[in-house]
Amino acid sequence: MATLLLNADMGESFGPWNMGQDEAMMPFVDLANIACGFHAADPDTMRRTVQLAQRHQVTIGAHPAYPDLVGFGRRSLACSALEIENMVLYQLGALDALCRAEGTRVRYVKPHGALYNDMMQDHTKLAAVMQAVARFDPTLPLMLMATRHAQPAQELAARHGISLWFEAFADRAYDPEGSLVPRSQSGAVYHDSMVIIEQARRIATGEPLIASDGQPLRLQADTLCVHGDNPESIAAVSAIRQMLTSLM
Amino acid sequence: MATLLLNADMGESFGPWNMGQDEAMMPFVDLANIACGFHAADPDTMRRTVQLAQRHQVTIGAHPAYPDLVGFGRRSLACSALEIENMVLYQLGALDALCRAEGTRVRYVKPHGALYNDMMQDHTKLAAVMQAVARFDPTLPLMLMATRHAQPAQELAARHGISLWFEAFADRAYDPEGSLVPRSQSGAVYHDSMVIIEQARRIATGEPLIASDGQPLRLQADTLCVHGDNPESIAAVSAIRQMLTSLM
Amino acid sequence: MATLLLNADMGESFGPWNMGQDEAMMPFVDLANIACGFHAADPDTMRRTVQLAQRHQVTIGAHPAYPDLVGFGRRSLACSALEIENMVLYQLGALDALCRAEGTRVRYVKPHGALYNDMMQDHTKLAAVMQAVARFDPTLPLMLMATRHAQPAQELAARHGISLWFEAFADRAYDPEGSLVPRSQSGAVYHDSMVIIEQARRIATGEPLIASDGQPLRLQADTLCVHGDNPESIAAVSAIRQMLTSLM
Amino acid sequence: MATLLLNADMGESFGPWNMGQDEAMMPFVDLANIACGFHAADPDTMRRTVQLAQRHQVTIGAHPAYPDLVGFGRRSLACSALEIENMVLYQLGALDALCRAEGTRVRYVKPHGALYNDMMQDHTKLAAVMQAVARFDPTLPLMLMATRHAQPAQELAARHGISLWFEAFADRAYDPEGSLVPRSQSGAVYHDSMVIIEQARRIATGEPLIASDGQPLRLQADTLCVHGDNPESIAAVSAIRQMLTSLM
Repeated sequence: MATLLLNADMGESFGPWNMGQDEAMMPFVDLANIACGFHAADPDTMRRTVQLAQRHQVTIGAHPAYPDLVGFGRRSLACSALEIENMVLYQLGALDALCRAEGTRVRYVKPHGALYNDMMQDHTKLAAVMQAVARFDPTLPLMLMATRHAQPAQELAARHGISLWFEAFADRAYDPEGSLVPRSQSGAVYHDSMVIIEQARRIATGEPLIASDGQPLRLQADTLCVHGDNPESIAAVSAIRQMLTSLM
Repeated sequence: MATLLLNADMGESFGPWNMGQDEAMMPFVDLANIACGFHAADPDTMRRTVQLAQRHQVTIGAHPAYPDLVGFGRRSLACSALEIENMVLYQLGALDALCRAEGTRVRYVKPHGALYNDMMQDHTKLAAVMQAVARFDPTLPLMLMATRHAQPAQELAARHGISLWFEAFADRAYDPEGSLVPRSQSGAVYHDSMVIIEQARRIATGEPLIASDGQPLRLQADTLCVHGDNPESIAAVSAIRQMLTSLM
Repeated sequence: MATLLLNADMGESFGPWNMGQDEAMMPFVDLANIACGFHAADPDTMRRTVQLAQRHQVTIGAHPAYPDLVGFGRRSLACSALEIENMVLYQLGALDALCRAEGTRVRYVKPHGALYNDMMQDHTKLAAVMQAVARFDPTLPLMLMATRHAQPAQELAARHGISLWFEAFADRAYDPEGSLVPRSQSGAVYHDSMVIIEQARRIATGEPLIASDGQPLRLQADTLCVHGDNPESIAAVSAIRQMLTSLM
Repeated sequence: MATLLLNADMGESFGPWNMGQDEAMMPFVDLANIACGFHAADPDTMRRTVQLAQRHQVTIGAHPAYPDLVGFGRRSLACSALEIENMVLYQLGALDALCRAEGTRVRYVKPHGALYNDMMQDHTKLAAVMQAVARFDPTLPLMLMATRHAQPAQELAARHGISLWFEAFADRAYDPEGSLVPRSQSGAVYHDSMVIIEQARRIATGEPLIASDGQPLRLQADTLCVHGDNPESIAAVSAIRQMLTSLM
């Protein structure tokens, strides 16, 4: 059984403004998605976050976004494919330089926010992100959302000569098609830590999840996306980590 | 006799705004100092400029700056040494990624505008820039201004394990100390192309220049900084190139 | 017969980058849509543009946009209605302050680029812009595109207590519904100055235009949008101005 | 006896990032220095902060800064006088528009951070700020630091036709010249709330302070600058407010 890796967004402070609990979260995760200055972070924040990841032997991924600090990269911006390719390259390289300064490198890529959503909806944008990764370093996996319909993305990745990592969520309800239930619907986000840990266990062991219609849903995932916004969520991450350790 | 390389600032357009005559200039230069998005350029402009340099087999250098688009990086910003180190790393990596996408790499570093001036005045800032270069890739030379007092910078570079490229100017008057006569003084900028070409010839052959006091001034320079703001200056660069070719 | 006013985008330079031929255009227009720093312009450019407009007794309008300098405000950004209202207020006030410094005021509002297009498509966004104008100063007209279906916008404006100015284009083909033929289609943009002047004349006199299907199209317009990107377009504007004068 | 007004920096959040305890602080202050988007805040934050000030009947001042979000306006930027004048006008107008949307107006101006420090050191920069205020609305007072040498600033203000408000600090030690002891020196910042309240009382009643050399120091101040970074500092502000009330 392959190990389920835990990934979390990190380095989302900006200038004098703090965000997240990176110090508290870093010990529990395997993969740190580090902001690259377009939706959050600045060169100093990036350097410190790389150092923190290094101290905890956490693998570093680039977390590129649309250029929208004030909107935190959550607002879709109507960019061309080439604009997306180039902005991903720019951010990837910027973070990689700060990694090199600390004796490490960027090891994977996970787009952020609206860019992530847009690439999941639009294969032209997904291809643009893949093109950036392939041209920068085709050995870097691209992380995207696990769904029941992963084949088109896999074929596109094969054409670009890159590999994919699929991520799932333990604290979100899935619809029967394997998509996340929108946050606007009730029951979309799980708050009960027993429920969260159980969904994480199913993802880790390959057992089917229970979709929003009560039916089993089979999702292949390489990694689980976790959040550390507050003490409760960090406790949940710690409990997931413990559960994963107990499976080994 | 070593060859005197011609370097010019390139890629200083931004979004919809054009600056410079990159297409016209690129054929005449050896080294393109490409803006990295902090004082000019955006990921798309950087990509196109890298492509243009590649077509003309021009060596690419990073041209990092203070984060000041509206001021074009010409206004000093009171940054700490670590802020400078990290902003140089960030910009270096960003440009390097766009180079990688075109099958090339950043080969040297020349800070821009106020950052360039500040590092020439303040060894703490110069050390910060050197630290960035050394941590990114110590084989990349750092370009700075040729003066009569190059030894402190050379010692600092040796401590950081990097090499230096000294640049001189053919269209600027030098004072007896080997510093540029400030633009505010009359006679600071040469407009007569015969004078410009003669100063370039002296720099290329190692003959002393004539300083502003009429006395000979010996400057060691690896490269000559040229500008392509208008048809006249491009003609001057073309004439310098022809003169250099005739020396070989 | 009411006078047809000529409006043009002005002040679209940014920092060291120049755009447009404001000095050449200003003498020919009645209304200057001045950029407010979000898609173009900076405080210094705004001040200079206000001074230029004052010298030519041209009425000043605010030209607010999405915050997207690198994309020149041409890329739609998924903003909430409140975000739009507040960004329009911010830009309106900023330009008004630079007007006050020159003894004048903002007299109308015309959104720019993607914000203009989005408000024409989406009444929630149009209402947000109207709300901003109404709360800043309900005596300021809002400029939007003349179409055959102006009534919904007029009703919305009435609810917000503001007035509307409709603008038409002399150099663009209209479809039978009174919408601009998309630039992607051939024949969308007129280049023949006789054609342009004739369309301007029809708009000015209230005669129907000839739509893309050859049928007459009646459009009510208060102002004609003109562009001064190059000497040819400025010559066209001059010719339109002459034609308008001859009508009086 | 004139009332000593309490002023505090407000609205220093930015996009998704929170800063300060505006909700907790607003009830205790008379004057809110609201960030204008250059060192902190965005149009939405500004609107919300204006609303909060309105609810507590707190007078609103503009808190303009150098354009340096990542450095929070704390790093000096080498701007010309005209650049300063125009950036202050821009920010003043932007905030004023958001005030107008809430039925109020900007009532005074207090520059922020490095701009504040620079104008206290350099009369050319102080004159540029005054010029902005005078041209926007000469009835708005400009707030600056109370020192023993206020006359030059007062004369400059008189020439610009504006009035000044002098501010003092209750939690900072003063040197015998009436300047703040630099934070780098021990004893520069008071932490004992009894000491803070006593210094506030002396400022309010016009009694001399005790300077760092133990000698009495007479400072004329219209307002006291207070901070609400944490629960302790808010408690101190509350205690100062109580002391001021007891004086009335």
